[in-house]
Amino acid sequence: MPISGRSVEDLLPPFLRHGWIAREEGNRLYVTDRRRLPSEHVEVECRSTEDAARAIRDMVTQGGGPLEVALHALRLAYRRGEDIREAAALLSAARPTNSTMRRTLSAVLDEADCGKDLDEAIDEAFAYYDDLYDRVSDVGEALIGDGDGILTRCFPEHTFMLSVRKAVENGKDVTVYVPETRPYLQGARLTEPSLRAMGIRCFLITDAMGAHFMAEGKIDRFMTASDLVLSDRTVVNKTGTLSDAIAASFYGIPYYAFSLSIDREARRDAIIMESREGWGEPGSGARMLYPLFDMIPPELVTGIITKDGVI
Amino acid sequence: MPISGRSVEDLLPPFLRHGWIAREEGNRLYVTDRRRLPSEHVEVECRSTEDAARAIRDMVTQGGGPLEVALHALRLAYRRGEDIREAAALLSAARPTNSTMRRTLSAVLDEADCGKDLDEAIDEAFAYYDDLYDRVSDVGEALIGDGDGILTRCFPEHTFMLSVRKAVENGKDVTVYVPETRPYLQGARLTEPSLRAMGIRCFLITDAMGAHFMAEGKIDRFMTASDLVLSDRTVVNKTGTLSDAIAASFYGIPYYAFSLSIDREARRDAIIMESREGWGEPGSGARMLYPLFDMIPPELVTGIITKDGVI
Repeated sequence: MPISGRSVEDLLPPFLRHGWIAREEGNRLYVTDRRRLPSEHVEVECRSTEDAARAIRDMVTQGGGPLEVALHALRLAYRRGEDIREAAALLSAARPTNSTMRRTLSAVLDEADCGKDLDEAIDEAFAYYDDLYDRVSDVGEALIGDGDGILTRCFPEHTFMLSVRKAVENGKDVTVYVPETRPYLQGARLTEPSLRAMGIRCFLITDAMGAHFMAEGKIDRFMTASDLVLSDRTVVNKTGTLSDAIAASFYGIPYYAFSLSIDREARRDAIIMESREGWGEPGSGARMLYPLFDMIPPELVTGIITKDGVI
Repeated sequence: MPISGRSVEDLLPPFLRHGWIAREEGNRLYVTDRRRLPSEHVEVECRSTEDAARAIRDMVTQGGGPLEVALHALRLAYRRGEDIREAAALLSAARPTNSTMRRTLSAVLDEADCGKDLDEAIDEAFAYYDDLYDRVSDVGEALIGDGDGILTRCFPEHTFMLSVRKAVENGKDVTVYVPETRPYLQGARLTEPSLRAMGIRCFLITDAMGAHFMAEGKIDRFMTASDLVLSDRTVVNKTGTLSDAIAASFYGIPYYAFSLSIDREARRDAIIMESREGWGEPGSGARMLYPLFDMIPPELVTGIITKDGVI
């Protein structure tokens, strides 16, 4: 159920408000370093498009962050008189899995090609996403029942946060179980503090505990964001999502993934899966494997939550 | 296949050798603090049975550690002229899930009641376990194939380590995938360094990545220790085991649990499941839930590896 008289910006936790993700000041872009939240609010200064692309590559921001960073960076590239197609290509390549960012930049460029002012096209893109978050989260809210225990993964950002916030504002009793999401700890550093800031009951758990709480009957649904959804409903999301999706299926618990847009073009076998090395680990000398994303096959996905309803 | 001419002590990694787990010196017991391995080798001094029980409760040692600590502590209690039944009860209560420790202490007391010297009964108990580790790991080694990728969980200690070591000594190519095992990081701090010390190829992964590598076809079997095995083959082991056992079943990968002894008396509904609070977490102010153990139902368990073969 929509919440009347409250903007998306009002309902979001601080970390997800516009100025907190990234902001322009003169010709420079300042990106909040999510790796250091919640203990410190440090901004990374980007003086060039390459700086902004590096911030995305280095995980200064992630999830929905790169989209906002890229829109700001494109505007600044334009103001500096750079080739905006080259700038967009550089930014898109910094997070190949994020097709929403790539397609949004491409759409903005197309509008500029058709004669629209680039500034205006970028403003409209920001407004489009605020409206989209609002609509997708109305669909998400309707799936949440009174008394629900919800398991999530990583930092599911605007759509999930708004869905849960709206459910609670509508009087539903909701408890969220948040895996830490090693090695970057997005769950511990971003999701749990964001839920707490909104006054939503939540528990931090380790990454392998989802099935435990499902077996105890505490989880009614598993809900995550998605980095990519293919047209066959394959979901690409943070590693660990697959494990919990399999367990949810085993216990007959529905799994829903939020999606801003289905990628009609991407093919399962053509997805570039990123992998990173760990940092700050105990047991130095160890060889670590940290694939960033899982691919969750359609048979494990109950539904994709979109602005047009559940697919 | 057994390895001729090499003792269990020769084949084990340093952390699992007798003197490294716990040692007596005069009337005092020194227990290696596993929470600080591998960066530091610090021993906790225990001057009383209560000290030893506290070391077990506080997770100074875990897995197979409490069994050795309790046998040493019982010997020292006896030498100090304490009531050895009370000492055994205190030690057993310090780790209620560890029925192997409880039954071993009880068996030693029974032998003492029948007139055997307690010192001798304790020495025999230590020798019994060395022989048991050797026999169980021969069964485990036979299940490992050349070229296998093996996923484990937590610190699977003597039986698993010896099985993998023997497989490699017998010329099999083996790769072990080791989840960190948050929040105590037994995988990162104990398992991975132990495997590396034995020259076995291994990768450290985060706790939610098991299913990811199964989907990639890199895992041929999932093998763990067990804190308890019930007569219906329900396995009690570190939280996260359930998640990977469900994923293994989904992908048709066998799951084997090592067991020193099946607990014929324990009933599923009467198991005392321990739960702890986390420590040293980011996002202070967060409410954390850290259940210690999963219960893995028999339908997810391919076999229990015992000294008498695979059940």
